[in-house]
Amino acid sequence: MTRVETDSMGPIEVPEDAYWGAQTQRSLGNFDIGRDTFVWGRPMIKALGILKKAAAQANGELGELPADIADYIVQAADDVIAGRLDDQFPLVVFQTGSGTQSNMNANEVISNRAIELAGGERGSKKPVHPNDHVNRGQSSNDTFPTAMHIAVVGELNDRLYGAITHLRDTLAAKADEFAEVVMVGRTHLQDATPVTLGQVISGWVAQIDFALEDIHHAEVGVRELAIGGTAVGTGLNAHPDFGKLAAKKISEETGLEFVQAPNLFASLSAHDALVEVSSALRLLAGAMMKIANDVRWYASGPRNGIGELRIPENEPGSSIMPGKVNPTQSEAVTMVATRVFGNDATVGFAGSQGNFQLNVFKPVMAHAVLESTRLLADAARSFTDHAVAGLEPNRERIQANLDSNLMQVTALNRHIGYDAAAAIAKDANKTGSTLREAALRSGKLTEAEFDAWVVPMDMTHPSAAE
Amino acid sequence: MTRVETDSMGPIEVPEDAYWGAQTQRSLGNFDIGRDTFVWGRPMIKALGILKKAAAQANGELGELPADIADYIVQAADDVIAGRLDDQFPLVVFQTGSGTQSNMNANEVISNRAIELAGGERGSKKPVHPNDHVNRGQSSNDTFPTAMHIAVVGELNDRLYGAITHLRDTLAAKADEFAEVVMVGRTHLQDATPVTLGQVISGWVAQIDFALEDIHHAEVGVRELAIGGTAVGTGLNAHPDFGKLAAKKISEETGLEFVQAPNLFASLSAHDALVEVSSALRLLAGAMMKIANDVRWYASGPRNGIGELRIPENEPGSSIMPGKVNPTQSEAVTMVATRVFGNDATVGFAGSQGNFQLNVFKPVMAHAVLESTRLLADAARSFTDHAVAGLEPNRERIQANLDSNLMQVTALNRHIGYDAAAAIAKDANKTGSTLREAALRSGKLTEAEFDAWVVPMDMTHPSAAE
Amino acid sequence: MTRVETDSMGPIEVPEDAYWGAQTQRSLGNFDIGRDTFVWGRPMIKALGILKKAAAQANGELGELPADIADYIVQAADDVIAGRLDDQFPLVVFQTGSGTQSNMNANEVISNRAIELAGGERGSKKPVHPNDHVNRGQSSNDTFPTAMHIAVVGELNDRLYGAITHLRDTLAAKADEFAEVVMVGRTHLQDATPVTLGQVISGWVAQIDFALEDIHHAEVGVRELAIGGTAVGTGLNAHPDFGKLAAKKISEETGLEFVQAPNLFASLSAHDALVEVSSALRLLAGAMMKIANDVRWYASGPRNGIGELRIPENEPGSSIMPGKVNPTQSEAVTMVATRVFGNDATVGFAGSQGNFQLNVFKPVMAHAVLESTRLLADAARSFTDHAVAGLEPNRERIQANLDSNLMQVTALNRHIGYDAAAAIAKDANKTGSTLREAALRSGKLTEAEFDAWVVPMDMTHPSAAE
Amino acid sequence: MTRVETDSMGPIEVPEDAYWGAQTQRSLGNFDIGRDTFVWGRPMIKALGILKKAAAQANGELGELPADIADYIVQAADDVIAGRLDDQFPLVVFQTGSGTQSNMNANEVISNRAIELAGGERGSKKPVHPNDHVNRGQSSNDTFPTAMHIAVVGELNDRLYGAITHLRDTLAAKADEFAEVVMVGRTHLQDATPVTLGQVISGWVAQIDFALEDIHHAEVGVRELAIGGTAVGTGLNAHPDFGKLAAKKISEETGLEFVQAPNLFASLSAHDALVEVSSALRLLAGAMMKIANDVRWYASGPRNGIGELRIPENEPGSSIMPGKVNPTQSEAVTMVATRVFGNDATVGFAGSQGNFQLNVFKPVMAHAVLESTRLLADAARSFTDHAVAGLEPNRERIQANLDSNLMQVTALNRHIGYDAAAAIAKDANKTGSTLREAALRSGKLTEAEFDAWVVPMDMTHPSAAE
Repeated sequence: MTRVETDSMGPIEVPEDAYWGAQTQRSLGNFDIGRDTFVWGRPMIKALGILKKAAAQANGELGELPADIADYIVQAADDVIAGRLDDQFPLVVFQTGSGTQSNMNANEVISNRAIELAGGERGSKKPVHPNDHVNRGQSSNDTFPTAMHIAVVGELNDRLYGAITHLRDTLAAKADEFAEVVMVGRTHLQDATPVTLGQVISGWVAQIDFALEDIHHAEVGVRELAIGGTAVGTGLNAHPDFGKLAAKKISEETGLEFVQAPNLFASLSAHDALVEVSSALRLLAGAMMKIANDVRWYASGPRNGIGELRIPENEPGSSIMPGKVNPTQSEAVTMVATRVFGNDATVGFAGSQGNFQLNVFKPVMAHAVLESTRLLADAARSFTDHAVAGLEPNRERIQANLDSNLMQVTALNRHIGYDAAAAIAKDANKTGSTLREAALRSGKLTEAEFDAWVVPMDMTHPSAAE
Repeated sequence: MTRVETDSMGPIEVPEDAYWGAQTQRSLGNFDIGRDTFVWGRPMIKALGILKKAAAQANGELGELPADIADYIVQAADDVIAGRLDDQFPLVVFQTGSGTQSNMNANEVISNRAIELAGGERGSKKPVHPNDHVNRGQSSNDTFPTAMHIAVVGELNDRLYGAITHLRDTLAAKADEFAEVVMVGRTHLQDATPVTLGQVISGWVAQIDFALEDIHHAEVGVRELAIGGTAVGTGLNAHPDFGKLAAKKISEETGLEFVQAPNLFASLSAHDALVEVSSALRLLAGAMMKIANDVRWYASGPRNGIGELRIPENEPGSSIMPGKVNPTQSEAVTMVATRVFGNDATVGFAGSQGNFQLNVFKPVMAHAVLESTRLLADAARSFTDHAVAGLEPNRERIQANLDSNLMQVTALNRHIGYDAAAAIAKDANKTGSTLREAALRSGKLTEAEFDAWVVPMDMTHPSAAE
Repeated sequence: MTRVETDSMGPIEVPEDAYWGAQTQRSLGNFDIGRDTFVWGRPMIKALGILKKAAAQANGELGELPADIADYIVQAADDVIAGRLDDQFPLVVFQTGSGTQSNMNANEVISNRAIELAGGERGSKKPVHPNDHVNRGQSSNDTFPTAMHIAVVGELNDRLYGAITHLRDTLAAKADEFAEVVMVGRTHLQDATPVTLGQVISGWVAQIDFALEDIHHAEVGVRELAIGGTAVGTGLNAHPDFGKLAAKKISEETGLEFVQAPNLFASLSAHDALVEVSSALRLLAGAMMKIANDVRWYASGPRNGIGELRIPENEPGSSIMPGKVNPTQSEAVTMVATRVFGNDATVGFAGSQGNFQLNVFKPVMAHAVLESTRLLADAARSFTDHAVAGLEPNRERIQANLDSNLMQVTALNRHIGYDAAAAIAKDANKTGSTLREAALRSGKLTEAEFDAWVVPMDMTHPSAAE
Repeated sequence: MTRVETDSMGPIEVPEDAYWGAQTQRSLGNFDIGRDTFVWGRPMIKALGILKKAAAQANGELGELPADIADYIVQAADDVIAGRLDDQFPLVVFQTGSGTQSNMNANEVISNRAIELAGGERGSKKPVHPNDHVNRGQSSNDTFPTAMHIAVVGELNDRLYGAITHLRDTLAAKADEFAEVVMVGRTHLQDATPVTLGQVISGWVAQIDFALEDIHHAEVGVRELAIGGTAVGTGLNAHPDFGKLAAKKISEETGLEFVQAPNLFASLSAHDALVEVSSALRLLAGAMMKIANDVRWYASGPRNGIGELRIPENEPGSSIMPGKVNPTQSEAVTMVATRVFGNDATVGFAGSQGNFQLNVFKPVMAHAVLESTRLLADAARSFTDHAVAGLEPNRERIQANLDSNLMQVTALNRHIGYDAAAAIAKDANKTGSTLREAALRSGKLTEAEFDAWVVPMDMTHPSAAE
């Protein structure tokens, strides 16, 4: 069953029970691209709801909308915000590059829901008109980027920061826990002087902290909204105070501080704040790739690899081969990293392609940033809970490796001289014996001296030559 | 309601009505990453069905499976192929990097469906065992990349080629139709000597042909399957003829020629064939971006742009401003292009990260290539049907531009000399008049001579100086 | 003529007049990759000099080096800093991934120059030893990334900021100058409501400011130095105060504030600060691409394009076609942008590839960041001086476009009603006449009324409906 | 000392001894971007010489140039081809996006050299005019892409194929040599069933073969030349047979088959053939990254890594730590790979940015492709000669790893049953003993049986269950 809705192009049939109207219906027919996976998800729909609510509140206060109309819009927008109308947003990402059709989708759904609340007839545009009332003082060109920003800031705060901090704190606790575990250092993949496992993990924590700080910095730009710029950035047809007031209302609704952007021409014709966020997410992805790679290499083996870390066995490895634990969580993280890198390539490219007063790659940019945010958050949580939390040193292996390592020979220099020390190392290398064995064989030092002088933990901090 | 399934890690509760088993269930719990949009779609599920069917047929013929077991598996796999069990594949892309869990998902679903067909009890592993029978002579390490290849070849043939050829043929017809429309050429965005619209469009067709040829070339590598390599490429535990025979069965099932890859070690540890396909898709995306950009710039205006092409008005532009037609289909195409570029960055990166006998970025690579294929096909069809098919020259504008263009002055050189011709052009430029007006004003030639000598169409093909 | 130098691998012939020694010579033989263009330039050589000078000063103060030895090193390093020994740095970027060989190149050159100053014999390692003295308390693993950071911070401050600010200020002056020039706005490449040229350019300025702020933020991380971490980040073999003191000396030498990094394990095993800078440079490149594209599209024509801006004619366009001015500076800028995007892809990729205690992609990362910095600075200066400084509006064209634009019809709504206004626009569109002509023809308003009501400048700022 | 040259913009001073003229001089002043490293190298200069020679020959034969003029040009072009005038090409890559200035540089240098040969006065344009004679029937828009293609094809054939084949053949010989060395297989970085070292290396060879085939395929498109298209693709002002004949002359000069492109509009407005080559080079880079990574991981240690391969010690590792051999050649290769990936990002981006009849990213695309070609060739040669040629298995380590590996337990299944075999493996894992020890301890089989049944080599090929 359908009803007939009308826009400036004429009548069109819309499913009878749809809250959306003519323009959404046309877009459904015109853009059937990647339908299975590229419809908008919660973050963007919610953001459109928040935006429309704030706009109605601002217009109401400024006298641009009658109080009752504004109220109906606010109530309808609350339904959108709460997720009660998610199935009324059927459009895909690959549509008009300004996001016009998703903006109109929001206008239509909210107006029809508001009409319903007012006891009117769906599709009648009375008493709440999708353009004249819901879109009052707005254009797709300023509302859609505003919604993009609300969605991204929301996802960063509601999803990403918590997940990444969870990873960071879990690692930091591990760094403390294993501060005394001395192990072989490795540079160029070659054995080197010792480090503690706590130091190793502290480096991972430092990388995450660095990336988080960068994301927080990038978020500042995303807190600036295009609202009030209307079609070309001049604000034509909006009340002079509308943008600022709408930003204030958005802040109140979300509990997060937003402001109107200082230059609205840039806000419509470029989305550099999203490009910056995307880069910061790539930085985090690169850091997580390094960490996940270290974890799986340290856990390689069980016998013929490094084998110095144990990771939880979450799923069957080999049915017959005990001890084989595939680093599946690390693999998921590194795959996510490659995806985030790709998304960042998309965002950087799209961000450079604005012309004149508009960048028409808005939807693809918003989608990619939101996808990266989601994937990093989910991957961090999965990795933390299913791998990092259960990370344990394989202490015997670590000690055996340390014992067999020849780099500790440097500790002997100051006691028996460089030449004698080097001779011991060469002998150990040639005969395949440990440094200890070769040292004692050399007759240059006693067992007690070796144990007193070669203390790996002493090599894990600065030490000037005497 | 749940039932208890068991794998080598012990018992686990599985939804009673699920065809999947213990390993799928564990993966569901372990990998909750991007669930909304990153479950596998039809192409990959269908490919897993085709693979398992072919494997059962091959094992049956080689005496590695009893005939009745093989038959039950074939029937169950047919259900997977037909899409009747799509909801039984709930796992996400970001899982084990070998795709093990999706391989086991297929094994479990098919074995339980086969058990059902045999009158057995779901979860009993009798008479059809997920590992011993469905996965017979296979490992995730060779089956998953085999399924990746089947899926990609399938999507190229079933979806992409048709859509791109549709675009190409529609453009080619336009090139013929407008072979006589002479228009201003443009280089450096500056006015240049004339071309025909047919020539312009022929360049677009040539780009698509070039990209299509490259995709076809890349497909050759994807027709080579890892099947028969089992866990590390040696084929251990598979019948020596299994891989070749399974490839033959896959060819029969799909009607597309597949072969076993010549070097199975490379097939497991690298996915260069997918990298090559991804690059070829990027080439196509770049070509489509050029075309879509040309279309929207030629259609820019209506008054204050180039304005030489008209595109269909698919949705309301401005309610009050007639003639404003936003190039929304072009925008969707260019957004898709940036996404395909990003996916290619992901695939290239992931493809370089293999270690030893395995590349563990299989799922993310397969997903990105399939997504790019789908988006390009959908975008091409949308662009063709909603924009290219309705493309029309704005003949008055084209003629007016041509008349006002000064580059035709070069046609006068051979008749009145370079200096006189240049003087006319300079006068036209200075006074803002047309070339014709300035030429006649110069007194160097008559109206008839101008019309005989300055024939833009004559300037659209080679012409040596006399 | 050669002399024989010796390292731990034995003797090797070195050109007699070379300041470099055995290890540099070996690297010359081992790495002949991209020799023509990939030798290090001034910024990196100077940074190595600064680093070695500061290290000698710090070691001298801490009693780790005799005062006279430290002094000789300082003098020799000053020669390196001043560029007097640039030809003594023949190694290419593609060498050991820790930059060891370039670190040794610096050690060898400085020691030999110091020996010379001390009256010793080149190659004798007496009285100034390349390892024991020049490299005292250091490892390639901490010195090379320290030098990378010094070089990048230096180039940002000495080269980039000035050039970009020059562009920004020149644009800002143009924005002021053309604040009163009202022109057609354009969204989706389609005519839209008016903007001023000042507003357009203000958007460009805002983009540059945004990118500059991001680069400054990223620079903070680059001010943190790895020095003091030695081989694996523990600082083994360095005086506990060495790193901090060396950073202080580097700050004094450069006049720029540097500090020792808070986590030296991260400083050796990752180069996220460079990744962040690279992203910020990509942001700037994207902004410059948008600006350069706008400039060339606004300058397109002269007759059959937009034609609203004039750019300086720097080189012959067409010898016969006056008025054709190719936007060559814009083209150089956009090409640079694509290069910077590529460099950023390199840096992001390389930055993710660290293992354990070391990232061995140091040289390629440093090189790419320095190249991007240089290219952006040079391109900005070229673009500013040869294009932006001479940018002028084509006022007649701008006015003619504005007159022919139909979007101003919206100004009539409030006076004659929406329907009457729309009818006028439709008539203008149909007949090809101007809005003014159609309005007068409608009989709905007088010439005086039209001129009073349709004032494009009034449409360039917010205006609530009454 | 300078002389005065004149072009359509008026007089300009040129260094007296320069062969270049006014337009080159202007470009020198206008484009000072990346001067240190971005001047054109041999391949592009030589290609311009070849092009101009072929054009003169073709024009001579077609009667478009007097025979003596054509001859002088041919002689002058031969000087350019031979490299005798390389210092006369001072312009940088970042110039006009059509490469106009480098085309004019070639025209000016060749005309002045030809004038000299004819006994005329440099700068007089008599008797050989840079435009009328050297550039006869040409435009930058078709000559520069033609030269790009000549340069790329030349570098592929003269430099790349030989170097890559050298690597491939050296690896193939190693694969044969080590066909009998059985070692632990590794998937997910975890121990797996055995492979031979020959099989491992055969996978590397297969990857190189695959990439080489792709490059050869891509080269086909680069053999197609834009010549004859002149300014917009129509061939205006060129003799109708000029393009085909010039391509024939280029083929004769180079000994490589070139043809005129089938669609010249695409050849000027897009450079998809270069994009395709760049992708194929990226494929090769990815393969080389995988190989170089495998080499360095297999060589990791010497004691606390995998340690199964030995690589040549080309430079001092640690002065005191014997056996530490840093995988410096692998590191150079992987750094080159990241650079090639970045260059490909540049090329793909630039290639998508054509408008109307011209893509104005020609120089940056040509430069990046040539750089990637050069780097891959140099890196391959360096890697082959300094690492691969000296690659040796560490047979004791390989055997020890194999002995300690538990995956061979699967060989016991068929003899003592799955359960007994699994129990042995579990015991070995628990007690840390070898499989052999645990097997004998189980009492299920004799020493002789173990040795007969557990034969790793038997596990390196297909084997159906009996």
